[in-house]
Formats: sequence, structure tokens, C-alpha cells
Amino acid sequence: VDVRYINPFLSGTVEVLSTMAHVQLIPGKPFIKSGQTAMGDVTGLVGLTGEVRGSLSVTFVFRVIQATMKGMLGDEITEIDNTVRDAVGELTNMISGTARRYLAEEGLSLRAGIPTVVSGKGHVIQHITNSPILAIPFQSQFGRVLVEVSIEG
Amino acid sequence: VDVRYINPFLSGTVEVLSTMAHVQLIPGKPFIKSGQTAMGDVTGLVGLTGEVRGSLSVTFVFRVIQATMKGMLGDEITEIDNTVRDAVGELTNMISGTARRYLAEEGLSLRAGIPTVVSGKGHVIQHITNSPILAIPFQSQFGRVLVEVSIEG
Repeated sequence: VDVRYINPFLSGTVEVLSTMAHVQLIPGKPFIKSGQTAMGDVTGLVGLTGEVRGSLSVTFVFRVIQATMKGMLGDEITEIDNTVRDAVGELTNMISGTARRYLAEEGLSLRAGIPTVVSGKGHVIQHITNSPILAIPFQSQFGRVLVEVSIEG
Repeated sequence: VDVRYINPFLSGTVEVLSTMAHVQLIPGKPFIKSGQTAMGDVTGLVGLTGEVRGSLSVTFVFRVIQATMKGMLGDEITEIDNTVRDAVGELTNMISGTARRYLAEEGLSLRAGIPTVVSGKGHVIQHITNSPILAIPFQSQFGRVLVEVSIEG
């Protein structure tokens, strides 16, 4: 994974959660993984195309998405329903858009598909690529967020 | 949803499962949905870009992916592990590729991102779009497969 990919996705995630939901994320040390899986309670996913082919996932544990929904809409959610999945999809769109804007400034232009959102207690996400996968962990006072980026080419 | 999208994804799914795994799928009546969600045990997802923006999901119940793995590799799986998720990712790639080849013959050229695969008992998938979502149900002797396609523009 090209290290140039790290900061756009890292900054995009921090900025979107802070701006949209007043949730402050502290980035941990990004690491390269292959084959393992991300686990969480709700995940936004989006496919990327362009000079390279990629995928982005943003995985939240329940307490973080609860705090995020409260920051965005003022409501205390008790379960992950359609409204929450819609919000996670929009956040994923915004994180993808912000990261792609930063990447474009570095000369890499990517397009994004329609996001999909997955929920289900302890679901597992796997990016299907032979390339390394970049994992960027974040901590907040409500728990963790995990961003994974796979890029080929 | 343009009805021209139905047959490429319908035929692509039937052909790939038959060719790769000797699993015969019987297509049900496609329907348009909005907002509801697909539930299953393992799902392959891929984002689409081009003249239109889209997403494709292929959701299997356990017994169908078990029969599919047996057809592909000869092994009787007892759980959904990395090997199964890899296979679902490759099947999703092939279904996307076959469908995109048919769409290209009709003049619509689309590109696909890296597929991701989700597992987790009864997980829920939601495509985040204001456009209608095309659902194509399939039956087999092992249970159902559900393909969903969202296309914008």
C-alpha cells in the first residue's frame, strides 16, 4: 500500500466525524494486514475505481455509532435500524469524498460506487484482494472505529 | 430501474453458479424495492462506476454456499471462514464481470471496485441510494440466493 493513501483516509475520517457529529477520533498507528477481518456492529462500504481499483470500509462498534447519531440528530438510538444504516452510508460517502478530494490534490483521481451498509452483531468484513490492506484504527471516548482501505495497482 | 439491467445480472448469476459450482438457480420474479434490506449468512458486495453509479450485492443462505463450496472445491464446509469469504468474493467478481460484459453489449460500460464480503448470522445489507433497488430472487434445491442491484442515473 502506497503510504500516500494513509493521510487522505485518516484525515477524511477524523474531519467527517468531528464536523458532522462532534465525535473526536484519535488516530492510532496504521498497519498493513492481509487476510484478516474487521469485526463490528455496523459497517459502511464503498467500491473505488479509477487509475487503481479499491474498496473502503468504515466499521463502528455500537457505542460509537450511538454517540455519532446523537451528535448528528440529537437522538439516543437503542438499536441499529434503517435510519442508522442510512446515516452510516452518508458518513461513508463523505469520508470517501473527502479522502478522494485529498488524493486528487496528489494527482490520484478515483470514483466511488453507491455505498452499502452492513449491520449485524459481530459481523465480519473481508476485502477480496491479493494486495495488502491498509488498516487505520481510531479511538474515541465511546470506543473504536476501524477504517480499512484496499487498493490494487 | 431500467429493465435492461435485469437480464445481465440475472443471467450472470445463473451462469456463474452453474459453471463454477454446478448449482442450478431458478430465477424468481424480479421486483423493485426501496429502503428494505436483504438478510442472509454471507454476502458479496461490489461498487460500480461509469456512466451510472451503482452497487451489487449477492446474498447466500448457509446451505446454498455450502453446496456451492462443495461444487467448487469438493469440500463440505461447516462454517463460514476466510476460504468461504474468498470464494464468495470471487463469485461476486465473476457475476459482476459477466453482467458488465452483457451490459457493455447493450452500450453501457461499467467498472467495478474491489469486492468485499460480509459474514455473520442474519446480517442485514442496505444499499444507500434514493433510487429504486432491483431485487432478483433465486431458488435452488439448497435454498435461496438474493441479488440486489442499485443504479443511479
